[in-house]
Amino acid sequence: MLRTLFFLLLILGAQRSVADDGYRLWLKYDLLPDAAQRKAYQQAAQFVAVEGTSSPVLQSAVKELQLGLKGLLGQTVSVTAGAAKKQGGILLRVTSSANVTANDRSAKLNKEGYRVFSEKGNIVVAGPTDAAVLYGTFALLRQLQTQQPLTNLALTSSPKIEYRMLNHWDNPNGTVERGYAGSSIWKWYELPELLDPRYLDYARANASIGINGVVINNVNASARYLTPEYLRKVAALASVFRRYGIRVYLSVFWAAPKTLGGLATSDPLDPNVRRWWTDKTNEIYKTIPDFGGFLVKANSEGEPGPQDYGRNHAEGANMLAEALGQHDGIVMWRAFVYKANSNGDRFKEAYEEFKPLDGKFATKALVQVKNGPIDFMAREPFHPLFGAMPSTPLVLEVQLTQEYLGFATHMVYLGPLIKECLETDTYAKGKGSTVAKVVDGSVDNHQISGIAGVANIGSDRNWTGHPMGQANWYAYGRLAWDHTLSSAVIAKEWTRMTLTNEPKAVTTITNMMVKSRDIYVRYTMPLGLHHIMGQSIHYGPEPWLAKSARPDWTAVYYHKADSIGLGFDRTAKGSNALSLYKPEVQQAWGNPQTCPLNYLLWFHHVPWKQQLSTGRTLWNELCYRYYTGADSVTWMQQQWTQVKPAIDPALHADVAARLQTQRKEAIWWRDACVLYFQTYAKQPIPAPFAPPERSLEAVKQIVDIYQMR
Amino acid sequence: MLRTLFFLLLILGAQRSVADDGYRLWLKYDLLPDAAQRKAYQQAAQFVAVEGTSSPVLQSAVKELQLGLKGLLGQTVSVTAGAAKKQGGILLRVTSSANVTANDRSAKLNKEGYRVFSEKGNIVVAGPTDAAVLYGTFALLRQLQTQQPLTNLALTSSPKIEYRMLNHWDNPNGTVERGYAGSSIWKWYELPELLDPRYLDYARANASIGINGVVINNVNASARYLTPEYLRKVAALASVFRRYGIRVYLSVFWAAPKTLGGLATSDPLDPNVRRWWTDKTNEIYKTIPDFGGFLVKANSEGEPGPQDYGRNHAEGANMLAEALGQHDGIVMWRAFVYKANSNGDRFKEAYEEFKPLDGKFATKALVQVKNGPIDFMAREPFHPLFGAMPSTPLVLEVQLTQEYLGFATHMVYLGPLIKECLETDTYAKGKGSTVAKVVDGSVDNHQISGIAGVANIGSDRNWTGHPMGQANWYAYGRLAWDHTLSSAVIAKEWTRMTLTNEPKAVTTITNMMVKSRDIYVRYTMPLGLHHIMGQSIHYGPEPWLAKSARPDWTAVYYHKADSIGLGFDRTAKGSNALSLYKPEVQQAWGNPQTCPLNYLLWFHHVPWKQQLSTGRTLWNELCYRYYTGADSVTWMQQQWTQVKPAIDPALHADVAARLQTQRKEAIWWRDACVLYFQTYAKQPIPAPFAPPERSLEAVKQIVDIYQMR
Repeated sequence: MLRTLFFLLLILGAQRSVADDGYRLWLKYDLLPDAAQRKAYQQAAQFVAVEGTSSPVLQSAVKELQLGLKGLLGQTVSVTAGAAKKQGGILLRVTSSANVTANDRSAKLNKEGYRVFSEKGNIVVAGPTDAAVLYGTFALLRQLQTQQPLTNLALTSSPKIEYRMLNHWDNPNGTVERGYAGSSIWKWYELPELLDPRYLDYARANASIGINGVVINNVNASARYLTPEYLRKVAALASVFRRYGIRVYLSVFWAAPKTLGGLATSDPLDPNVRRWWTDKTNEIYKTIPDFGGFLVKANSEGEPGPQDYGRNHAEGANMLAEALGQHDGIVMWRAFVYKANSNGDRFKEAYEEFKPLDGKFATKALVQVKNGPIDFMAREPFHPLFGAMPSTPLVLEVQLTQEYLGFATHMVYLGPLIKECLETDTYAKGKGSTVAKVVDGSVDNHQISGIAGVANIGSDRNWTGHPMGQANWYAYGRLAWDHTLSSAVIAKEWTRMTLTNEPKAVTTITNMMVKSRDIYVRYTMPLGLHHIMGQSIHYGPEPWLAKSARPDWTAVYYHKADSIGLGFDRTAKGSNALSLYKPEVQQAWGNPQTCPLNYLLWFHHVPWKQQLSTGRTLWNELCYRYYTGADSVTWMQQQWTQVKPAIDPALHADVAARLQTQRKEAIWWRDACVLYFQTYAKQPIPAPFAPPERSLEAVKQIVDIYQMR
Repeated sequence: MLRTLFFLLLILGAQRSVADDGYRLWLKYDLLPDAAQRKAYQQAAQFVAVEGTSSPVLQSAVKELQLGLKGLLGQTVSVTAGAAKKQGGILLRVTSSANVTANDRSAKLNKEGYRVFSEKGNIVVAGPTDAAVLYGTFALLRQLQTQQPLTNLALTSSPKIEYRMLNHWDNPNGTVERGYAGSSIWKWYELPELLDPRYLDYARANASIGINGVVINNVNASARYLTPEYLRKVAALASVFRRYGIRVYLSVFWAAPKTLGGLATSDPLDPNVRRWWTDKTNEIYKTIPDFGGFLVKANSEGEPGPQDYGRNHAEGANMLAEALGQHDGIVMWRAFVYKANSNGDRFKEAYEEFKPLDGKFATKALVQVKNGPIDFMAREPFHPLFGAMPSTPLVLEVQLTQEYLGFATHMVYLGPLIKECLETDTYAKGKGSTVAKVVDGSVDNHQISGIAGVANIGSDRNWTGHPMGQANWYAYGRLAWDHTLSSAVIAKEWTRMTLTNEPKAVTTITNMMVKSRDIYVRYTMPLGLHHIMGQSIHYGPEPWLAKSARPDWTAVYYHKADSIGLGFDRTAKGSNALSLYKPEVQQAWGNPQTCPLNYLLWFHHVPWKQQLSTGRTLWNELCYRYYTGADSVTWMQQQWTQVKPAIDPALHADVAARLQTQRKEAIWWRDACVLYFQTYAKQPIPAPFAPPERSLEAVKQIVDIYQMR
C-alpha cells in the first residue's frame, strides 16, 4: 500500500513539476505553505451554503470557492442549499441591503456592493444581487490568498463606478490592434459551436476584479458583428460571461446601414437609418437579452461618422440611444477625434469639438475620453474635457496594452499612471473636483458612470505577454471598482496572489512596480516630452521623425526642438491649450518656473540653458533623466535577482530575460534621444555620464529595421 | 506519515485533474496503463549510457529518454557515460555505419539513419551521427508509446529525402499568412534575450518526426531578417534548434540589395548585387555557422525577382548559390509562378517558365514545386513539372495549414493527400517513376533531395487549432522521412501516441482519419472541381465568383459551368495542359469516358446529362457526392461519439464541437454548390435527396459576411 502510494506520488509529482506558465493569473490557488494557517482556514471553510434560490451567477461563486479552497487548503468542500444549520461554513446570501445582518451597517451597499462578515460561527458573503455575492466571494478568496485573518471579518465594498468596461481592440481576422500578447482570444471561426475553455477563465478573471462589461471588438469596427451569423457567435460568448455578471457590448461601424443594410445613407437624422438601427438593436436584444450597448469611434482617424452628413457627435450618439429605447443599454461615444492639424495643436481638438455639445447628449449616451489629450503617452496631463462637460457623464478610457510603453518587454506597472490621472484636481467645481470624482459622477451628480480599459490580453498562454502585465489588468479592475485604493496596495495584493507571499520579496517587487512607470518615462520621454516614438508601430525612439501623412503624426510637431530650446508652448504665447483648463490648473502649469517638471515640456518651450528647479539646466536635466532612467533598469534587474528564491523558476527566468531586453531598449532610447537633441542643444553630455558609444546614424537604423518590409 | 502522503496525493491529484490541452502533441508520455507491460519496459530501461563523447544533440536524446521513461513508466533513469558494464539499459552509440553491431546488417544507413537493436541485454540506439541517434531515440520511445514489444528489437531506418523542411509563413508582425492556430510562435520583440520554452518543444516535436530544417519566415519575405538586429534573433532560435539536429533557413526578399543594401538595383547579374549577397551570406554564417540556406519566392504574386531585370529564375537562384559558396547551404527556388492569364490556363504557367531552365540551375539550387499545378486544392493532379526537369532536384511542397481545407474546424487528415501525390506515376523514366522517386532523387540520380511542408502551427495552446491537425504535422514528417509508409499506419501510430491506445477506438479514429480527406473533397469540390472557394480568405464556397483583380482568381475561370456542362477542358481541344504530362498519363486522364472521376472536371468539360461510370449523369453524380459528402460528416460525428470513453473529456468535447461546425459548413458548401450549378444544369435535385431549405441568395450572403469590413 505504502509502496503504491509512493509510486503514485512519484507519477503525480512528475506531472506537477511543470513550470508555472502564468495561465492562472492571480487566481492561482496554490496550496498555502503555513500548515497552522491552513488549518484555521479549513475550519472556517468546511462547507458552502447557498441561502435561498441559487442561480448561474451564484453557482459560479460556489464553483470558485470549491476550486479556491481545494487549491489553497487542499480541502474539498461540500455544498448545501438553504440556511446553514451548522457552523464553520461559508454562506452565500442574496438579500436586499436592509437585511444584511452585519456588525457594520454604516456603509450602504449599492446593487453590486458586498459585505463579508462573521455570523454565528459562519462566514457570510452577502449582497443585494447575485453579482454582488460573486464579488464578495472573490474578496473572501483574496483574503485567503493574501493570508489575511478570517476572524471578525468585516469587508464592505461597493463599486464607485457603474460601468466597469474592458475594451478589446480585437479584429475579426484574429489580430489585435496594438496587441502584444498573441492573437485575439476570440475564435470566430469556431464560434458558436466551440466554446474555448479560456472564455470561462477570462470571465472568472474579470469578475474577480469587478469588471462587468466587455466590448469584444475593435473600435475600428467591422459591420459583420451585426449580422445574424455573428450575433450567434457573440451570444455564445455572452452565455459564458453572463454567469459571471459580465455583459457584452459591441463597437459599431458607423456605415453599417449602408454596407450591411443596403441603405443609401448613414445619416443619423434619416428616418430609414433610424429605423434600421432600431430594428437591428431589437434583433440584438432578441439574441442577447442582457446586451450592454454600443461603443462608437466616429469621424476619427478615417472612420465614418455623423459629420459625413453634417451632423454632430451628439446627434449620432442620440440616434443610437433612441435605438436602444427601453432596452437596458448605453452608448459610449468616443471623444478621441482630431482633425488634421486644424488649429496647430491636436491637444485642443477633442475639447473644441465636444465641449459645445455638453447638454446635448441623450440620457443613455456617455462620452468616452482618454486620460490625456494626445494618445496614451507614458505621462500626460489629464484631458481638459474632464470637468468641462458637467451635463454629460464622461467615461475615462485608459490603455492597458502597452502601445506606447515598450510593448510586452518593458515592465511598466500602470497603477500609478491611472491613479495620477484619477487624483488630479480639475477644479471643475472648486478644489477636490478630481478626475475620479468627475468620472464617478459625484462632482456633477450623474446617475450613470463608466470607466474603460483597453485590454492588454491575447492568446499568449500567460494572457499578457509580459508576466507583469497581468498586474495592469488587475490594477485597472481594482481601481475601476474603487479609485481610492492605492496603487501600491494593489501591487502588493497582486504580487501576493500571483508571485509570492514571501514578505521581503513582496516588498521588493512592489517597490519595483510602483517605480517602474516613472523609470519608463525617464528613459523615453522625460520632463513632459511626448509622441517621439517610432512611427506607425510606435516601437522605439524616433524623435527625428519629421514627415508623415499628417503633421501631428510626426515627432517634431510635439517636441519642437530648435537652437533655442525644447518643448511645446501651450501658453497664451503659444497654442494656448492651457486655457482649456480651469484657472487653478493654468496657474499650476502655466509658469515655466513653477510648472512641475513632469509636465514642463507639455506646456513650455524651454531654453536649453535654462536652469530648472533641480539646479540643472534643461539640457543637463534631460541627459540626467535619460541616463539615470536607463540605469534604473539595471537597478530593476538587481531587484529581480534578489527575489529569485521566492519566485517560480520559469517565471523568474522569463521576467529576467525581458528585463534584459528592457535594459537594451532603454539604452537605445537614451542614446537616440540625447544624440538627436544634442544636434539642437549643441552641448556635451554632462559628467559623469559617458557619451553614447554609437552615432546618431547608427541608432536611427534600428528603428528603420522595425519599419522595414 | 501515511496521512501526510494521502494529503499530498490529494493535492497533487487536484493539480493533475487539469484537462489535456494538447500542448504535448504526440510526445505525451502519460503513464502506460498495463502494469505488466510497464514492468517489462522498466526492466529494459533502467539506465541510459552515452557511449563515447557526448554532445548537445546526444544530451537532447538523453533528456528525451529521461522525460519519456519517467512519464510512460514512472521510472527515473540514471545516466552513465562510457560503455555499459551492466544489463537492462539503453546505450546511445554514435559510430560509423560499419561498426554498428546489429543482427540485421542488410540495410546500409545513411548519415541520419539509425538502428535500434538488442545487444547483450541492453538496447542499443546506434547511428553514424548524433542526429541519427536522436532519431533512433524517438523511434524507441515510439515503440513504448504504441505499446510494442522491446524484445528482439530491430528497427532500422534511413531517411529517403535529405532536406526535410518545415516552411513557416510567419510574418514579422506576428501574424501567420494562412495560419489558423493563433499567431506566430516566434516572438521577435522578445528575441534574442528571451527564449520561449515553446521553441524547445517545437524542436523536440520536429526532431521526433525527422524534420531537420525550418524556414522560419514567410515566402512573402521581409528584408529585416537579413539585418544584424534580426540575425541575432534568428541565431538565438538556431541555438535551440541545433540541439535537435535542426537547421534554420530564411526566406529572402529579392529587393533586399536595394531596400537594405542601398544599391540601385537587385539585378542578379550586377557585380555589386552579387557582392552584396556574398557578403551578407558570409555575415549570416558568421552569426549562424550551421545556417541552412535560402528559400525564394520571386516574380510571383507581385513579389520582385530577377525577371524585373530581364533575368530568369535560374540566373536568380544561381546568384544565391554562388553567394553560398563553400558554406554548407542550399537555395530552394519556388516554381509557384503564374502570370496573369498569360495563356488562358494557369495550370501550364509554372511548367512553361521552368521546364526550359532544366539543366541551368547550379548544384546547390533546388526548385520547389507544389504538389499540384494550381494551389493546394483538396485534390489536384500531380504537378506536371515532376518528371519534366530531370537535371534539377525538385523539392515537393505540400501545405499542412488548411488554407483550402476548412481552416481549423474541419477534420481533414492529409496523409492520404500527400501519399496520393507521392505514389502517382509520372512515367518520367518509364513505369514506376513516381513523384516520390522523382523527389527522393532516385529516378534521376540526384545527390540532393528535399521536401517541404507549409506549417499548420501557431501560438494556440494545442499548436494546430484543430486537435486533429496535429496529425498532419506528424504525418508530413513521417512521410518526409519515409514516403513508403502507409498513411493509415501513420494515422494509427499518431492516434496511439496522442489520443488513446484503446484498440477499438484506435481503429475507429484511424478509419475516420483515412476517410476524412475524401469526405472533404466530396462536400466541397467533388469530381475534380477546383478553386471555387471564397475569395481572398479562401473560406466557404463562392462558385459564383466571376470578378476579381485577375481572372484566374475567380471561380468561373476554373469550373466553366455553362448550359452544356461543367469542367475545364484541358485536352487538345481545350488548353491542352494535359500535353505537359507523359503519354501514359495523358492516356489515363485524357478520355472523359475513362478518366478517373476524381480528376474528371480537372481535364474535361462534361455535359450535365452525360452518364458517368457510376451509372449516374454528371448532374446526378455531382448532387450525389455533395449530399453524401455532407452526410459523411454526420457519420464522422457518430464515430467520434463512439470513442468518447477512450478519449480525454476536454479533448473529446473540443473535437465534437468542431465536427458540429464542420457539419454546418459541409451543408453550406453543399447547398451553395448544388443551388449555383443548378442554375446551369437546370435539373432537379435527384431523389432521395431533399432540395436545400434555403435560396441561393441566402447562401451567398454567408460568404459575403466573412469578406465584410
